[in-house]
Amino acid sequence: MENVFAKIAVVGSGALGCYYGAMLARSGVAVTFLVRSDLAVVRERGLRVKLPTEEFALREVRAQATPEEIGPCDLVIVALKTTANGDFRTLIAPLLHERTAILTLQNGLGSDEELARLFGAERVMGGLCFICVNRTAPGEVLCIEPGSLSLGEFGRPVSERLRAVGELFTRSGVRCQLGDDLAWLRWKKLVWNVPFNGLSIVAGGITTDVILADAALEAEVRALMAEVIGAAGKLGYAIPMNVIDQQIAHTRPMGPYKPSSLIDYLAGRAVEVEEIWGEPLRRAQAVGAQVPRMAMLYALLGRLTKR
Amino acid sequence: MENVFAKIAVVGSGALGCYYGAMLARSGVAVTFLVRSDLAVVRERGLRVKLPTEEFALREVRAQATPEEIGPCDLVIVALKTTANGDFRTLIAPLLHERTAILTLQNGLGSDEELARLFGAERVMGGLCFICVNRTAPGEVLCIEPGSLSLGEFGRPVSERLRAVGELFTRSGVRCQLGDDLAWLRWKKLVWNVPFNGLSIVAGGITTDVILADAALEAEVRALMAEVIGAAGKLGYAIPMNVIDQQIAHTRPMGPYKPSSLIDYLAGRAVEVEEIWGEPLRRAQAVGAQVPRMAMLYALLGRLTKR
Repeated sequence: MENVFAKIAVVGSGALGCYYGAMLARSGVAVTFLVRSDLAVVRERGLRVKLPTEEFALREVRAQATPEEIGPCDLVIVALKTTANGDFRTLIAPLLHERTAILTLQNGLGSDEELARLFGAERVMGGLCFICVNRTAPGEVLCIEPGSLSLGEFGRPVSERLRAVGELFTRSGVRCQLGDDLAWLRWKKLVWNVPFNGLSIVAGGITTDVILADAALEAEVRALMAEVIGAAGKLGYAIPMNVIDQQIAHTRPMGPYKPSSLIDYLAGRAVEVEEIWGEPLRRAQAVGAQVPRMAMLYALLGRLTKR
Repeated sequence: MENVFAKIAVVGSGALGCYYGAMLARSGVAVTFLVRSDLAVVRERGLRVKLPTEEFALREVRAQATPEEIGPCDLVIVALKTTANGDFRTLIAPLLHERTAILTLQNGLGSDEELARLFGAERVMGGLCFICVNRTAPGEVLCIEPGSLSLGEFGRPVSERLRAVGELFTRSGVRCQLGDDLAWLRWKKLVWNVPFNGLSIVAGGITTDVILADAALEAEVRALMAEVIGAAGKLGYAIPMNVIDQQIAHTRPMGPYKPSSLIDYLAGRAVEVEEIWGEPLRRAQAVGAQVPRMAMLYALLGRLTKR
């Protein structure tokens, strides 16, 4: 398996792309970053990653401004905000040869299908990042909680290829699980993202601890989670209801945590409204799931993020 | 009936209290205003009322800073924000003789019961103000839309006393209806207030025309109205569902209208969260009505108005 992915491109060099790309590069994998605003800094100074227990710098980083300069790769890791999905063709097509695999680390629903539509379903894999990492400066990321990465093939069970990707990440120091059902993994992550990312914005820009300190808002978190689980169940992705208690228990010790959508919102950047709330809502409604709170949250977020 | 209410006190001299009090005073009724911050201005310059078609000034206005200086009256008109209901005993008790009637013009649910509990149910009447009036300066109000006033006895059908109050208002130029079911009138008004006052705040401080220009938000308005009507029905107050279309049609030509709660919110004043959302929600839940959107709206408003 050693040389299956001899050349890897990371598209989207925000916190997530820099972090995973740097981890892979440090472990000896040939990673090239597609970088926009921070290109000069990254070329000159490389990348710096702060982890809870260590800190490392990559002095020599392959970084390009255009996909054409990178050229065809064996694996393309997509770490763009979903709000940039309209640029898929421009950014990804030049990176593909006949057997290039694409791994999207993007949030929510819709990216897998869009990549499959544009480039072929057989190329697509997805990864769900349970991680807390922020960009602190150009070329610098701070990973507060490395968490883990759940990987799945798009519409297929675990494959040899997926195992090879998993091994790359594992060897680089990223805790990794493989799953037979990517869509199930996505819905399970939405159980957390729909309420916490959403309420943190519409309740006035508040962190998860403030949400959970307010009994009425915690009840709304739980009710939203139940709606997401109910919708997922109707769609064939069975998630047990005790996940609600688990996720609340897991969130409480996180303290004043800002969900990624809140960070985007407060920074005036585009929020992934369609992928985290719109598409799940539409799929839920299509199968007749009762999702009144998801509908209201989506309507409010649509309006609040209109700038 | 001429002398039933020889002496009237208006408690709460915001836009509503000044407007109705000034209309009554102009028609020759002996009205005394309980005034706090604007007392000096009102005593010196009186009250000025601008209506869509006319404008009038009351040069001599009876105004006092304390209820003790006013003393017992025949009718007490309560035009306080419900957020000041904790002051009922202090502000109202000194105005009462054995047969004093109390008319609350306050929004939402709970004030009738609280006045009844404190001073006796037999005293209490309520009025729903369908009006658009703002305080433009100390002692000055602008009435954009005089609308009408719906009056009812608390827990009793129309009485002689209520008719007398209605006549006072009618003779003063205020369009007035009497109703046999005050609680029904309150729920009918909530059909509008719950969605529009609420969404105007949680969707980011927007006017009613912006809400109705957004298809997803209009759908939420309709869904919230249906929840309020459903809850009212379970409580025994039958409101037909076509009220939804009527109220939307009535709201559309109002243009960039700021609901009163939004005005309070934007001005940093207390919002009547418990009376407009909390108490209706609790009563709906007590009879098992399905009100998920009302619950979420209440939770969000509770948090957003915490200062």
